[in-house]
Amino acid sequence: MHIIDTRQFSREFMDKIFVLAEKMRQIVLSRQPSIILKNKKMIALFHEPSTRTRLSFEMAMSYLGGHFFSTPNASESSSASKGETVEDTIKVLQGYALDVIVLRHHEDGFAARAAQASLVPIINAGDGKNQHPTQALIDLYTMQEKFGKIDGLRVAMVGDLAHYRSIRSLCFALAKFKKITIYLVSPVSFRIKDDVKNYLTKHEVWFLESDNLQKVAPLVDVIYQTRIQKERGIHFDNTDFMINKKILSLMKKEAIVMHPLPRVDEISLDVDEDPRAYYFKQAENGLYVRMALLKTMLVRE
Amino acid sequence: MHIIDTRQFSREFMDKIFVLAEKMRQIVLSRQPSIILKNKKMIALFHEPSTRTRLSFEMAMSYLGGHFFSTPNASESSSASKGETVEDTIKVLQGYALDVIVLRHHEDGFAARAAQASLVPIINAGDGKNQHPTQALIDLYTMQEKFGKIDGLRVAMVGDLAHYRSIRSLCFALAKFKKITIYLVSPVSFRIKDDVKNYLTKHEVWFLESDNLQKVAPLVDVIYQTRIQKERGIHFDNTDFMINKKILSLMKKEAIVMHPLPRVDEISLDVDEDPRAYYFKQAENGLYVRMALLKTMLVRE
Amino acid sequence: MHIIDTRQFSREFMDKIFVLAEKMRQIVLSRQPSIILKNKKMIALFHEPSTRTRLSFEMAMSYLGGHFFSTPNASESSSASKGETVEDTIKVLQGYALDVIVLRHHEDGFAARAAQASLVPIINAGDGKNQHPTQALIDLYTMQEKFGKIDGLRVAMVGDLAHYRSIRSLCFALAKFKKITIYLVSPVSFRIKDDVKNYLTKHEVWFLESDNLQKVAPLVDVIYQTRIQKERGIHFDNTDFMINKKILSLMKKEAIVMHPLPRVDEISLDVDEDPRAYYFKQAENGLYVRMALLKTMLVRE
Repeated sequence: MHIIDTRQFSREFMDKIFVLAEKMRQIVLSRQPSIILKNKKMIALFHEPSTRTRLSFEMAMSYLGGHFFSTPNASESSSASKGETVEDTIKVLQGYALDVIVLRHHEDGFAARAAQASLVPIINAGDGKNQHPTQALIDLYTMQEKFGKIDGLRVAMVGDLAHYRSIRSLCFALAKFKKITIYLVSPVSFRIKDDVKNYLTKHEVWFLESDNLQKVAPLVDVIYQTRIQKERGIHFDNTDFMINKKILSLMKKEAIVMHPLPRVDEISLDVDEDPRAYYFKQAENGLYVRMALLKTMLVRE
Repeated sequence: MHIIDTRQFSREFMDKIFVLAEKMRQIVLSRQPSIILKNKKMIALFHEPSTRTRLSFEMAMSYLGGHFFSTPNASESSSASKGETVEDTIKVLQGYALDVIVLRHHEDGFAARAAQASLVPIINAGDGKNQHPTQALIDLYTMQEKFGKIDGLRVAMVGDLAHYRSIRSLCFALAKFKKITIYLVSPVSFRIKDDVKNYLTKHEVWFLESDNLQKVAPLVDVIYQTRIQKERGIHFDNTDFMINKKILSLMKKEAIVMHPLPRVDEISLDVDEDPRAYYFKQAENGLYVRMALLKTMLVRE
Repeated sequence: MHIIDTRQFSREFMDKIFVLAEKMRQIVLSRQPSIILKNKKMIALFHEPSTRTRLSFEMAMSYLGGHFFSTPNASESSSASKGETVEDTIKVLQGYALDVIVLRHHEDGFAARAAQASLVPIINAGDGKNQHPTQALIDLYTMQEKFGKIDGLRVAMVGDLAHYRSIRSLCFALAKFKKITIYLVSPVSFRIKDDVKNYLTKHEVWFLESDNLQKVAPLVDVIYQTRIQKERGIHFDNTDFMINKKILSLMKKEAIVMHPLPRVDEISLDVDEDPRAYYFKQAENGLYVRMALLKTMLVRE
């Protein structure tokens, strides 16, 4: 079992992760050692800089009694920099008796290529502008936790929808739930790609594109804000797409603001105190969901 | 409890660390496993390159049965490089059930800002040209170990006193002891900053500024030598401020030479064989003192 | 005991490693925890980028119940970058109660210098264009495993023989076995250095230099292929020195193709399916051999 693309997730699989994530939270909060992943071994091979995703995977492994091996900057130090193919890299890692390989890479489809060559389970921890499936599980779990269900939710996705892998992953995953409404709020030239829209249509998700966050804000249960990823060389003036007190004042009382983090200025700091600010809870959930995922993948029941 | 600035240390706290560091040495030398920090979790987030400080913290944690998570080059790989504030970074890390966060950063006051945002204990492992409090504890423990007490010692600080955080931290900490004399030996334009001098005066530490190491050498119990930190873009001709056989010949028989290391040419290699060369013992003490500090912070008595 | 240069290996030592590596394989494949290196501590200090060698050492340590501390990019982050000598680095690390120090460095002779300063066992994990002794042990174990013995083997070394440390290490090590024949296949200006040839002559190894892989291929039991190390700034047109189906068709049925990996284009991908392609098995053996070596060095019988 590889985790590559949220389109692969069944509703049943996701529900199972949500239930398990809650148990994982209890384990973490109990501060008691766990041996659920005793003697299991993970490698994290990150070709693209990331502290948080890597650390939360390593902590997930460690908190469940497993071992991890780490390459924080594989692009610089690894065999890849000498011209090795991903297939060769995987074939070598396979020889090391690992139980799971976590990969991040700047290239779309990298994890899928790795998975095709691999007998060891692969987790895509982000591949270019393509997918970030564990982030989507975290996002969904956060909604599930808040609202008790995901069916019927109205979600606004805000920002550079054309290039944000977390947005793509989340849209595809939401399509597996019932009666979902998605507002796609972005500048015209940063609209989400057609393959996502086609997928939503096919799965009977009602969606609407807009460049007016103020109009959308009162309508939704979730505003999912994103950062302008300057490291991808693309940006726009985001003043019309920022979450601030004004936007908060328009939102429903029970709605929440989410963000995969890190945040720069697209959510103003004074939003943090509002009980609807859910992005730090969402980040915390990252640990529980990754623990749940690793347990699901590595422990046969 | 955060460890940010040596001005926060009470005499009682420091004495406690010294006693505990001695016990930690016994644990290490026994080579028996310890479970003192069992199930405790540390993250080391280093925005400024450093091997030694990071490794000795990680070893301290591990030798006491705890776990550590590591980011050797956070500036390159972390969310900070994408524009995240330290407050956000801390709020996210807080969600990961960590017991302590060790931070190094090139910015003065970084650790203090982090501490203000943090419910998890923060250890400042060096912030810009400001403070390096654990180094000061190591330095003091080394003096305590050698002389049996710190009260009454005469200490010469040598080198770029204007920009060296270990010097600042040590001066502030020494001020908590009695009858301390400090000789501040540097080129005129690299004299220690006024806030340190004011603090020493206020705490009745007798100090003297000098640019003549040869005159000071016979007078002191400790020469604390420092490296010219070329990575900070500032340097001077250090020939008049080097420790060599000539300086050794002027020093008291029972005096010692200390250095936070790494050393370049400011202590000549032939000094190493002299029994007064204490810098490698000092480095070793780094492990014991950091173990003592972590135990003090993480284990409630 | 340091591991610096394959010339130091006795036949008895190597035979012992081979027997032990086989036991290590059983431990890994059993997927049961081992406590053979319980409470043992390794540091991996890599001044030159490398993922694989570092990870396999860390895994070797961990799979046997030991602890490791890691510096993936020591050149950037360590005291060395501030001008510290290797002797000082070693003296400091010695104070940390480590059981073994694994070093990689771009400088020939670095590990030998470290070893001279060190009371703690040093393993050379590659020093410039000089030596890579653990790779040689892996290579020999792979031959031993395949052929049941190394005495009498005919081995072709192919590629940039002038600058490849694995080639040097392997040639020196093969000289300790009986009736070895080595074909040194390279462009004329990339021939192996005289000190290797003199050593082979002195140890009665029959060798022949050639630039014709097709002529050599049918004669040998092992083709040991290497990559053009562009990171060393030296290269040549390798079309005449590539392993492909054509070369395979010339080889003996029982011969094998080895490569220290990573591979770029010097072995074509369609060779992988041939049962004589042994380079991924060889990479896997890296884990077992390093486990065997660490056990031999750290556990007194």
